[in-house]
Amino acid sequence: MHETQYLGYAAGIITTLAFLPQAFRIIRTRQTRDISLLWALAMNAGSILWLLYGIAKNDLPMIGANCITLFLLTIILYCKMRYR
Amino acid sequence: MHETQYLGYAAGIITTLAFLPQAFRIIRTRQTRDISLLWALAMNAGSILWLLYGIAKNDLPMIGANCITLFLLTIILYCKMRYR
Repeated sequence: MHETQYLGYAAGIITTLAFLPQAFRIIRTRQTRDISLLWALAMNAGSILWLLYGIAKNDLPMIGANCITLFLLTIILYCKMRYR
Repeated sequence: MHETQYLGYAAGIITTLAFLPQAFRIIRTRQTRDISLLWALAMNAGSILWLLYGIAKNDLPMIGANCITLFLLTIILYCKMRYR
């Protein structure tokens, strides 16, 4: 594996895992007041596009990262809509 | 420009602009309780890595998007550390 791929995987793992503590926090506290709804909506839409871009470029770090990010962002958006 | 590039630019523009309402919200309210500090830290670190990955792959949508994202995430992290 080319070392650039390692950089991509590291970036993908960190920005993907980043959403875990955010998701856990709002699941635990049921408080989403400081989260912007527009942010949550745009991030979900954008992650779908990044996923498609990764597929189009056959870029495995982007595909893997955006699948998991999209899953966590869906949870965050659901919580934002439910716990206002 | 290849149409895949358009997809990348659209993804980059949306996930970059997504951080604008989030940054504005916490600048305006000075409330960051529901924002995870770990999320803010990891997103900053991850954006630096995505930027380096974009540079290594000479991928203009990734480079442009992550420059602006990093700028907005720095503001969000600063607010999170300042307004606890």
